[in-house]
Amino acid sequence: MKIAIDAMGGDYAPNEVVKGVEQARNAYSDIEFQLYGQIDKIKPLLQSNERIELVQADEIIEMGEEPVKAVMKKKNSSLDMAAQAVKDKKADAFFSAGNTGAILAAGLFIIGRIKGIDRPGLATTLPIVNDPEHDNFVMLDVGANAESKLFNLYQYAFMGKYYAENVRHIDNPRIGLLNNGTEADKGDKLHKAANELFAKNSDLNFVGNVESRELLNGAADVVITDGFTGNAALKAIEGTALSVLDLIKGEIMQGGAKSKLGALMLKPTFKKIAKEMDYSQYGGAVLMGTKAPVIKAHGSSKANTIKNTIYQIKTMIDSHIIDDVVEYFNAHAQQMDDIKRDAKNN
Amino acid sequence: MKIAIDAMGGDYAPNEVVKGVEQARNAYSDIEFQLYGQIDKIKPLLQSNERIELVQADEIIEMGEEPVKAVMKKKNSSLDMAAQAVKDKKADAFFSAGNTGAILAAGLFIIGRIKGIDRPGLATTLPIVNDPEHDNFVMLDVGANAESKLFNLYQYAFMGKYYAENVRHIDNPRIGLLNNGTEADKGDKLHKAANELFAKNSDLNFVGNVESRELLNGAADVVITDGFTGNAALKAIEGTALSVLDLIKGEIMQGGAKSKLGALMLKPTFKKIAKEMDYSQYGGAVLMGTKAPVIKAHGSSKANTIKNTIYQIKTMIDSHIIDDVVEYFNAHAQQMDDIKRDAKNN
Repeated sequence: MKIAIDAMGGDYAPNEVVKGVEQARNAYSDIEFQLYGQIDKIKPLLQSNERIELVQADEIIEMGEEPVKAVMKKKNSSLDMAAQAVKDKKADAFFSAGNTGAILAAGLFIIGRIKGIDRPGLATTLPIVNDPEHDNFVMLDVGANAESKLFNLYQYAFMGKYYAENVRHIDNPRIGLLNNGTEADKGDKLHKAANELFAKNSDLNFVGNVESRELLNGAADVVITDGFTGNAALKAIEGTALSVLDLIKGEIMQGGAKSKLGALMLKPTFKKIAKEMDYSQYGGAVLMGTKAPVIKAHGSSKANTIKNTIYQIKTMIDSHIIDDVVEYFNAHAQQMDDIKRDAKNN
Repeated sequence: MKIAIDAMGGDYAPNEVVKGVEQARNAYSDIEFQLYGQIDKIKPLLQSNERIELVQADEIIEMGEEPVKAVMKKKNSSLDMAAQAVKDKKADAFFSAGNTGAILAAGLFIIGRIKGIDRPGLATTLPIVNDPEHDNFVMLDVGANAESKLFNLYQYAFMGKYYAENVRHIDNPRIGLLNNGTEADKGDKLHKAANELFAKNSDLNFVGNVESRELLNGAADVVITDGFTGNAALKAIEGTALSVLDLIKGEIMQGGAKSKLGALMLKPTFKKIAKEMDYSQYGGAVLMGTKAPVIKAHGSSKANTIKNTIYQIKTMIDSHIIDDVVEYFNAHAQQMDDIKRDAKNN
């Protein structure tokens, strides 16, 4: 398999990207890499060019740029060129740690949507803590779309199910709908309709509405949400976890010698916790619904996260998840049309 | 001042409610209390009936009941009767730790809306951590309404501003709009329009869009959000804080003797952290936009939270915040009509 990588995307690019790619190359013998970027900067970083092809890209899309405009204009950017390679079937998947909006735009406009998927959704994997039976859950859409319709949520549900099964290896994953209460009639018009639609579909192991308070406690294996709410929930989870850990650090620093000694003794415990909370172990966020895997790692990704994300991409390609999604939406085109027609009457 | 209290609402009612009321009675000499509930259960709990009037209520609205139906049907419930006392001007504020939906319904249908406020919004106060300059922020709506329009958000902004000024004593509070990015053009149609509307109003110290990741870091003093997103963000913050603290506890318990000894040495630090994160210190959630203060404490409230909430209510009454809100929306009725008319064209 071949993975096209934007070597210039991310806060620590190209250094950490290259380092991560080499770690992955050494770990997984069946992957060939294409690194798009400024060869004169990348080449000196490489220990060996085994299974790593360098492709010159003269431009870079910066973090702060207006995404759609940048993707449309900078055809010679490392990000565009890596996506274009996938479009041209020269590679099987596209990966960048750069400008999120630009990655989504490249996925949508260069690589393109799967037939039957109206809007790809961004899926992220988060840890489940304090529940020995479940390790992690998948949530989508976490922000690819600011507005969602009923059929978008429906499509997210099936894409989430396939992702949990194929990539996270969860059998018959429990699908939950993020809502403002667990009762079936909770929420706005959209979420009430989604609950009803999900509940009557026997292809989904639907466990009903879930509240954001219970996500880390393992309320569901796949959490379906509109992109606006999902974005707010994801960022609240990230922000709160960081704030609590920062608060602990701050208080320990301000505490006396006893406090610092206590912290020293708890160091292995804190390390274990940080590891458990670190969801970069599951790789990056996946734009589900494009014709080939499009994966975005955090801008702050270091080599280890890059390597984890490449493993995630390998799993996606090995499992043929894209083919499964294509097949499902082909076989259920009529059903999808019915849902769209009914939704108009809402 | 007189406060009407549903003595039967909450997981630990009436015991903890009564205990909290007595603590408040002993602390604040200018408050008279009306306790609505089953006198035979309340009376034996009272140490003294000084400034505490007991009013028999034969019915109780349970936690699981369908809120609007319950409020409409159970006119003799402690919750309904306490709200009715405020409606009849026998008391200045209504307080319950019971069924959230029923408290909102009683506020809306029994006490009633302020003229010019279309939908009251639920406001909660949360701690700001790691920022020595700011202690807490107010967020609304956190779930009174599952669907919000532009003029609802606009009304929340002014009610939030008055709350932060009058009750939290924050001068010229920084108003932020919860959105999926900080740039002004982020979000769905509603939030784009809200950003534009807030930005051009010089009565608001609008600091722009804020992301849920930055709320606990002090991004704004007042965070304006539609009730659906606000509910998801609030519950994600609560859930994550609890999960992280539980995870730490769990890991310490599983750790060896060294880990437990370390935890023992850090006990004062952990206590300080728990105190800083405990937002019941700010009282309960306030339904802003009703003709008199309507306050809901967490169902799990113990006496100390009840006491804090009564202090919060006292501050609301002392500061005449309701009069301020009434006056503002009276004086700006024309402006509000304009916003509603313009919003229809969106």
